[in-house]
Amino acid sequence: MLSEFELISRYFTRPMAPDSRAALGVGDDCALLTPAPGMQLAVSTDMLVEGRHFFPHADPHALGHKCLAVNLSDLAAMGAQPIAFTLAFALPEAREDWLAPFSQGLLKLADEHGCELIGGDTTKGPLTISITVFGEVPFTQALRRDAARDGDDIWISGTLGDARLALAGYRKELPLDAATLHAAAARMHQPTPRVALGIALRGIAHAAIDVSDGLAGDLGHILARSRVGARLDVDALPAGPVLRTQAQTLRRTFTLSGGDDYELCFTAPQSRREQVLAAAEQAGVDVTRAGVIESMPGLRLVDAGGEPLDLAPSSFDHFSS
Amino acid sequence: MLSEFELISRYFTRPMAPDSRAALGVGDDCALLTPAPGMQLAVSTDMLVEGRHFFPHADPHALGHKCLAVNLSDLAAMGAQPIAFTLAFALPEAREDWLAPFSQGLLKLADEHGCELIGGDTTKGPLTISITVFGEVPFTQALRRDAARDGDDIWISGTLGDARLALAGYRKELPLDAATLHAAAARMHQPTPRVALGIALRGIAHAAIDVSDGLAGDLGHILARSRVGARLDVDALPAGPVLRTQAQTLRRTFTLSGGDDYELCFTAPQSRREQVLAAAEQAGVDVTRAGVIESMPGLRLVDAGGEPLDLAPSSFDHFSS
Repeated sequence: MLSEFELISRYFTRPMAPDSRAALGVGDDCALLTPAPGMQLAVSTDMLVEGRHFFPHADPHALGHKCLAVNLSDLAAMGAQPIAFTLAFALPEAREDWLAPFSQGLLKLADEHGCELIGGDTTKGPLTISITVFGEVPFTQALRRDAARDGDDIWISGTLGDARLALAGYRKELPLDAATLHAAAARMHQPTPRVALGIALRGIAHAAIDVSDGLAGDLGHILARSRVGARLDVDALPAGPVLRTQAQTLRRTFTLSGGDDYELCFTAPQSRREQVLAAAEQAGVDVTRAGVIESMPGLRLVDAGGEPLDLAPSSFDHFSS
Repeated sequence: MLSEFELISRYFTRPMAPDSRAALGVGDDCALLTPAPGMQLAVSTDMLVEGRHFFPHADPHALGHKCLAVNLSDLAAMGAQPIAFTLAFALPEAREDWLAPFSQGLLKLADEHGCELIGGDTTKGPLTISITVFGEVPFTQALRRDAARDGDDIWISGTLGDARLALAGYRKELPLDAATLHAAAARMHQPTPRVALGIALRGIAHAAIDVSDGLAGDLGHILARSRVGARLDVDALPAGPVLRTQAQTLRRTFTLSGGDDYELCFTAPQSRREQVLAAAEQAGVDVTRAGVIESMPGLRLVDAGGEPLDLAPSSFDHFSS
């Protein structure tokens, strides 16, 4: 059995990058972080619990990726550039065959985004992972939830619903063949945080949120905080490549309230459509326009023909479900 | 049953302070934090697990205090001024009779230190609390672990060992009477982070660490990172008021390797003794000089007469115990 200090040292201590923003990394009482002049620090924290956010015996490499990805997705939704993160986790025992792939999956994604591990805490306990991530965004350019305006287009990055389709397969809610489940599951286990898109949308988009608990609920947060409403064309929503082959009812339900998508939902003035498309091309991700912000409160769902749809979407709630 | 959003809103959302460093608090994808010019941000994270760091059915008010106190203690050990924290926690169910006192204990201590709750995450799961705390410290003034020098005095704030004595009572390792256990337990459940002392020691102390896993082990981190050794007078260590009434062997063992003390152990040049005492007086806490940093590596324990003591202290390890 490795001791706590050997464990941290072996898998999570690395030489500091020459351009590091951190004056002290893992190994002192605190890490020291120096945001660049003119920048605000964007901070987000998440906790993932075994059996709740991921399956028992989940593949540790994919889990390492996903833990950080969901946090980077929050930075993306603010238009922030990742710079660093802390990692606190409890695990039942310090097993090398779990720690090695977990740290590899985590640090590979961290390196891709120049996001440095600057501190942490490890303890014995039920498998629980908590990450706090730090990013930088220029003053006044953060993409906030409260900034949507009447007349804004509503945009979605990438595709929605494949992660939820995979969950339905695992849960046997739907009879999916192995190939379909496998294809959908890649999306569930390896989400891609839209960091480059969030940064490219600075100064273009008004409001943004990342879609983690289902589009309807997450868009609802933008509406509530911006004190506006929206009309959303459900059939215009970009279904994932696997979900696209499924029946219309399922497509509508899972794009609208699937969860675990980690795409960006953002609003931008109609006058900025060209710039939105250019930002998306620069970031290498498709974006789809699927609705419009209106002054009347509430979320109005319509079909491709503009007729009202009554789908009663529900957001994911961590305590009531 | 409260929903996750009602829960956060009811117990953890508060009006933002007028002098807040946070541009956005709880309720967006990220919080936005603005460190003052010339300041570095000190960041520390901790995870507390029920049954490991606190007893099942621990008093929630005291637990709320302690969760934040242990993190503030890390800031104190860097000489950093607390500014903000994030809170991620899993709990089995959203019970108001737990959440109300927990949030009160937590936010009372936060308010005492001007430390604002800026973000968080709540989920269902085994009771686990993870806090990431942020403080500010002027460039080059952080009290690091690697800055102890040959000839420095070794100082301890407050007293040591009462928390460990309480643990011994709870575990029935020792037959403590109820009054003794009760007195010692206050120290275990309501540690006082030495924030004001840490700040007052900027520019005076060389190295510092907070004593959380036992003095011998924690001082050992200073020695290892500073590449020095030390001679420590075990009988000069400040035993807690309850431990002080116990036998010498117990006093020596529990002051040296008790754990859960949350005092500061720091080093400072002999020429600064007056300034150290003045800083302690300003901070309203006693400090005790109990040893000296030496160039020869290793920790040499001696008794009041200067004779070597063989106590084989062990630090607390979260995986091997």
